[in-house]
Amino acid sequence: MRILKQEIEVLLKNKQIKKLQETLETFESVEIAELLRSMTFSQKLSIFSILEIDLLARVFEEFESDEQIQIIESIDKARKAELLDELHPDDRVDFLQEIPIDLKEQLLSIMAQKEARETRELLIYPEQTAGGLMTTKFIKVRKDLTVRQVVNKIKKAAKDVETLSHIYVVDENDVLVGLVTLQDLVLSNMRKKVKSIMQQHPVSVYTLLDQETVAHEVAKYDINTLPVVDERGIIKGIITVDDVIDVINEETTEDMLKFGAAGELSSSYLKQNPFLLARARILWLAILALVGIVSGFIISKNSLILSQVIALAVFIPLLNGSAGNAGTQAVAVMIQALAHGEVKFKDFWKSVHKEFLTGIILGFILGMLGLARAVLFQKSSLIGITVGLTLIINTAIATSLGAVLPLVVKRMNFDPAVISGPLITSIMDVTSLLIYFALVKVIIL
Amino acid sequence: MRILKQEIEVLLKNKQIKKLQETLETFESVEIAELLRSMTFSQKLSIFSILEIDLLARVFEEFESDEQIQIIESIDKARKAELLDELHPDDRVDFLQEIPIDLKEQLLSIMAQKEARETRELLIYPEQTAGGLMTTKFIKVRKDLTVRQVVNKIKKAAKDVETLSHIYVVDENDVLVGLVTLQDLVLSNMRKKVKSIMQQHPVSVYTLLDQETVAHEVAKYDINTLPVVDERGIIKGIITVDDVIDVINEETTEDMLKFGAAGELSSSYLKQNPFLLARARILWLAILALVGIVSGFIISKNSLILSQVIALAVFIPLLNGSAGNAGTQAVAVMIQALAHGEVKFKDFWKSVHKEFLTGIILGFILGMLGLARAVLFQKSSLIGITVGLTLIINTAIATSLGAVLPLVVKRMNFDPAVISGPLITSIMDVTSLLIYFALVKVIIL
Repeated sequence: MRILKQEIEVLLKNKQIKKLQETLETFESVEIAELLRSMTFSQKLSIFSILEIDLLARVFEEFESDEQIQIIESIDKARKAELLDELHPDDRVDFLQEIPIDLKEQLLSIMAQKEARETRELLIYPEQTAGGLMTTKFIKVRKDLTVRQVVNKIKKAAKDVETLSHIYVVDENDVLVGLVTLQDLVLSNMRKKVKSIMQQHPVSVYTLLDQETVAHEVAKYDINTLPVVDERGIIKGIITVDDVIDVINEETTEDMLKFGAAGELSSSYLKQNPFLLARARILWLAILALVGIVSGFIISKNSLILSQVIALAVFIPLLNGSAGNAGTQAVAVMIQALAHGEVKFKDFWKSVHKEFLTGIILGFILGMLGLARAVLFQKSSLIGITVGLTLIINTAIATSLGAVLPLVVKRMNFDPAVISGPLITSIMDVTSLLIYFALVKVIIL
Repeated sequence: MRILKQEIEVLLKNKQIKKLQETLETFESVEIAELLRSMTFSQKLSIFSILEIDLLARVFEEFESDEQIQIIESIDKARKAELLDELHPDDRVDFLQEIPIDLKEQLLSIMAQKEARETRELLIYPEQTAGGLMTTKFIKVRKDLTVRQVVNKIKKAAKDVETLSHIYVVDENDVLVGLVTLQDLVLSNMRKKVKSIMQQHPVSVYTLLDQETVAHEVAKYDINTLPVVDERGIIKGIITVDDVIDVINEETTEDMLKFGAAGELSSSYLKQNPFLLARARILWLAILALVGIVSGFIISKNSLILSQVIALAVFIPLLNGSAGNAGTQAVAVMIQALAHGEVKFKDFWKSVHKEFLTGIILGFILGMLGLARAVLFQKSSLIGITVGLTLIINTAIATSLGAVLPLVVKRMNFDPAVISGPLITSIMDVTSLLIYFALVKVIIL
């Protein structure tokens, strides 16, 4: 990569345009994008100005929207229009959805009429739905055509579509009725009707289906291309598997950040400054700090007990920590089981029962540890029994809550990962102190 | 699905084998597998016995290994051999890797010679590498063939490979030199040499490359099929994108469970009993409980101070909680940034600097909250200042450690997600108490 960069810089300096174009064309668009990121702004501009328009479009698609705006604003109007027309419809829509509305309208106005209309149609669909993911560059054919006719149609359409490997078969109303792959066609007798060789009832998704469910369908059926239909069954577009992989990566990032109570990041980490990072995280931190203050009140209420038997304070980190950790574990397991559809709301009691028993087992082991700690160092079996019992009860509550909360949140159509590790930890701090002092009053005082 | 089940059950009861076969054939293998999961063991056996062998193989591939063993053990020897031969090589290897070694050898011995040899070759590669993921059912052609010759070869090989859409071009030593897609062939002049239309230098991976990196490559280059080559460049197999999606799902599950300190699960959640669940979680809980006991010792060491000013104990949940939460947030962000390759070890100081400043900002806001709490309810500005300062220092340490630890762990070639939320929370409990009491001694006493 570094050698390539030097080579490109030399070619740029000497204005060897032809050689430069040839060199760049041997690389993948994602590699050219990487290279450009490491160059100065004026170097970038020179390269943008000499790239063939289709390669420029592929490279453009690799950038994030803030970089894309920069590129768009730095090239002249004629080339700007050409570039926009050349983008894949789904990538074009993704870009336009991210930019200010007046810039969006301005760009739509300079595009070719057909592309602009197509784009406006796609812009209707919310970003995180099947419609928001799909491209309109696919091949559909009527079911009465012969294989030969279809092959001829493909040859004509070739340069205008994203993939030739899947051809969708429709009836006279454009309703999706079947699917043939290019290999079905190649292996078939040319005189056959396409409806006689097509796979009927291909898996398809509805335009407004949530993108996470789209990803599940693709993973479940092991398919590379998924047709998108409207409520009448009319085919509107296709989703390709590379976009699905991006969705999966996006959704899992979101889950991990939510589970870590870390807020959302608008772009890549190294581009964020500390103020942006802090802004994303402060809300949860402040809410959880308030819960921490509630825990403080519980200690404050019981300060008389603590000042009498200060040894009791020694166990607070162990008790609070263990309950929070056991809760975090259960939540992590449950979020994953929900994300993969292994557990559904109908499994509520089964899951809670399972986690409750798991909590009892874990609490018993931790309780023995706490008991040993108290007897060895505090020389008090009463404190030991109290600590041990608290650990059993706490851990069982923590694991049960760890099952209940994500299930309930999911049922309410929120992302179960909003039940973060820090949230359950803070909730368990409060619970754990309440139980501890209650048991202290019964057993010790 | 429920209607289908009833229909199938009626057909089974009336022994309408032909009708049953026809009905089942209209469904996808994953749907048949789902249906079978809801049936009794004897119903399952009847259906296994009537499924066409290729459909049986596809359905078999949808099951987890414990279910697969059950199936294998319940069908007769001749059909068992047929089934094994019919499996996709990568799925066959996945299954054989999961079962006891004597069963594996027994099954290999009843397979057809060619398939058994092929399988033994694939079994050499570790499970989580490119070699462990690949299938050997792909098409390779010599670069000197004409397009017509290649098309004829494809037609002959069609039923023996997993995908026809990508054809790999090799030299006389089987070294990978290019790639043609089926659409390149269809669109090309039949008399051309394949080497004149192939894409040179196709993206490929080395047999022993880790599966997570394989998934990155596929996501980066937006490809559906990835060739796998050995150290001499000889093509050994291909990886299809559906397997890559499974890898991504597997890896993100692993990350989430690690980050939640929840251990590993060997099969799906609802199949686990509480003892298995507890076994997966107890190790981390016990380790973290020991850290909790260390925190207890710090309190114990300072119990004299606490018994003098019991109000100081009131702030421990706020201080420990906030530090743990801030650390968890930073770790979550860093694990994601590392997983997506946004941050590398060379960005160490940049990241730590960023997180340190973020911690200062967050700590300042939390500190104001702590100060307010102390002044309002404890009527003590000295305690308030101590708590506020502790929060600033703690939070800055927490966010910085949240950047440092995952980066270092990743550098040591471990998964950064082993730095779990509970782990950083427990570490911060200790740190936070040490700093609190140190500041108490300086400011208050």
